[in-house]
Order: sequence, then structure tokens, then C-alpha cells
Amino acid sequence: MKLYSFFNSSTSYRVRIALALKGVSYEYQGVNIRIGEQETADYIHLNPAKGVPLLIDDDGFRLNQSLAIIEYLDACFPEPALLPKDIKLRAQVRAFAYGISCDIHPINNLRVLKYLKNQLGVTEQQKADWYKHWVAEGLSAAESVLSAREKTPYCFGEQPSLADICLIPQMANAKRFGCDLSAYPRLMEVFEHSIKHPAFMQAQPEEQPDFIK
Amino acid sequence: MKLYSFFNSSTSYRVRIALALKGVSYEYQGVNIRIGEQETADYIHLNPAKGVPLLIDDDGFRLNQSLAIIEYLDACFPEPALLPKDIKLRAQVRAFAYGISCDIHPINNLRVLKYLKNQLGVTEQQKADWYKHWVAEGLSAAESVLSAREKTPYCFGEQPSLADICLIPQMANAKRFGCDLSAYPRLMEVFEHSIKHPAFMQAQPEEQPDFIK
Repeated sequence: MKLYSFFNSSTSYRVRIALALKGVSYEYQGVNIRIGEQETADYIHLNPAKGVPLLIDDDGFRLNQSLAIIEYLDACFPEPALLPKDIKLRAQVRAFAYGISCDIHPINNLRVLKYLKNQLGVTEQQKADWYKHWVAEGLSAAESVLSAREKTPYCFGEQPSLADICLIPQMANAKRFGCDLSAYPRLMEVFEHSIKHPAFMQAQPEEQPDFIK
Repeated sequence: MKLYSFFNSSTSYRVRIALALKGVSYEYQGVNIRIGEQETADYIHLNPAKGVPLLIDDDGFRLNQSLAIIEYLDACFPEPALLPKDIKLRAQVRAFAYGISCDIHPINNLRVLKYLKNQLGVTEQQKADWYKHWVAEGLSAAESVLSAREKTPYCFGEQPSLADICLIPQMANAKRFGCDLSAYPRLMEVFEHSIKHPAFMQAQPEEQPDFIK
């Protein structure tokens, strides 16, 4: 199994957590999206969507989109399960995960921030405000959801799920961009707990072969 | 079952297609997101993420996020299945669906367009260029994926799947915003075929109780 990944990409980070939780070994191929390595002809041939992560399975099966990759890994390697068996709880975990992966991440993605700067000529301050605005909108909703539930070490229980896999990279990014996270005490508890888990530690940007300080 | 929906919301449109394909009857509750009805205290109490769609099941179970709702409906009402049984094909359908629901839709969502206008003061032309840029990026990738596959009436086979459920509302939106879709002949074929399906017809904006011309 081969993973095309960028150390600082939060969607790559999600897949790395899932692979580490499952204990699946893989070859790591760094793609530096800061300098446009995802836009070379060779890479577009592999992934027309021009992004990371991209998984290539041992039989050559290619798959992009972090959430599709994670659901695929969960089907191929059922233990530990990344989604609860109960239909309603599973739906809630997915809704939480999509709240991050649809409502926050895409709007604050590097390509969007670049468009804001290069095509729309926004200032650094306006770009920072944009980033913080969508983080606050999304994390406020996530905090409301978790604070209405029984307190558990991970978002939805005693073990990590797809919810934590999406939350932790987003929180790490938000910290990196200087967002004030004091309004999200439940999310911070889950974050502080999760980053001590060996799989989450192994998946973090600093541990990747393409890490640049 | 009760669905909070806005006639022109493409994420609501997705869920309406899924409900119609499954033949599930439901109560329709319009939420006019143009005038901020999703930001009232009563609505935020139901859905802290302040968006549509929102499904409330007969036992009071509340669920937001269109993709989570559709996966939930697919688990509750297995026929017709919205995802293939084959693990790899299922992963490809999900990746295609997420290509639209993560890479296009969130960036062109009404709340983002409002931010561009109100906070960043972009012109109508800049806003239109923004919309068209992300549609072109996402649909080009989708066209590449489908044109590399055997031609089928729907995206991934003889029957509609989650892929078509995400594609058709996005294509309808793109047409409404005046995007040139001539570069996507395979997507257009699937679109023209799908919109004749009774479930897709029943789900379209013009057929909803809150439709405003």
C-alpha cells in the first residue's frame, strides 16, 4: 500500500491516523503541495482531482478523497472499527466528521487561501480573519454537539472514531493558525487526550518523512 | 419523518432525491436560508450547525449533514441501495460524491458567497468568477473519472447511486449560475438522463412547497 501525502495536509493526516489505528504498514510518498507537485502531469494522471491524499492499494487500485479512503480501510481492515455498529450512533459520528470535513476544511484549504490572496488580493489580516471565521463557525457547532452528550475520552466513546480522525487534524491546524480555542473546552479535552494515543502521535506532521520545519 | 429543507439548497436537494428513490414519505418544513431562518434560536436549538437539511425521524432522532442523512436512510431503508456492495466500487462512488460535496459545494455555498460580498467587498463579477472557478476545478476532475470508465446511464452503473445524488444538484446549480458545461459531455449525459427519473423530478427545487420563482 502506498500513500501520497503532504505532512501538513490535514486530510492526509486523517488517513495517516486511520492507517496507524489499523496497524497497516505503507510506503510514504511525499507530495509538496506548497510548490505545486500535485499539479504535474504525472500526478494528475494518478489523481485528476489534483490533491492529497491518494492511496494506491497493492493491486494498483487508486483512491482519492480522505473520507472515502478511510471508509475503504475500515471495510478492508475491520478492527478496530472506525464507525459504531449502531445505525443512529454511526450517523451521528458521520455527521460530526462531515461538519469538519465539509463545513470547515474545504473553505480554509491551501488552494482557497491562495485564490483569496492571488486572485482577490486580500490582505494577510483578511485571510487570517477568513480562516478564523470558518473555524469558529464549525467548531462552535461541534462543541455544542459534544457538550450535549455524556463526557467520554474520545468524541463518541471510549475509542477513537472517524469523528476524532477528522477533529484532531483540524484542531492542530487551527492552533497553527493562531485560533483562540478557549471557547471549545470539550473539543480541547478530546484533543489533549487523543494526541497522546500512539496512532495519533505517529500520524502527526512532525513524524512524517517530508516534514519541513 | 420530517425534513427541514430549502428548495434551492443543493444539499437539501440531495436528501430529497434519496428519500424519493427510497419511496419514503415525509413532512416538508421549508427553512428560508436567504433571509436567515436557519439562524433563529429555535432552529439553532434543533441544529447547532445552522444549516439545512435536517432530518427528524419519527422517534425524535435529529440528524444534520446531507451525506450522513443519506447513509442513514440507506441503512434504514436498504432498497434500492445507494451504494454498491463491492468494496472498491463503493469506495469509488464515495470518492466521486465527496469530490462534489467537499471540493465544490462548501466553497460555493451561500454563506461563503455572502462573506465574499459583505466582508471582503468583492464585485459581482469576482463572485461569479469564484463560483465558476471551483465548479470548473471539481467538474473537470469528475469528468476525467467518468470518461475513463465504461459508459453507463448513471455515474457508476444502471441505477442511481450517491454519486448521482451529489452530481445532479451541483450541475443544476452550475447551470443556474450560468457556468459553461460544454467541457463535461459525460457529466451532461448523466445529468440529462437522471433528471428524467421520477425521483429526481420529484426532488427538484421547482416541485417543493417553499419554491419561490
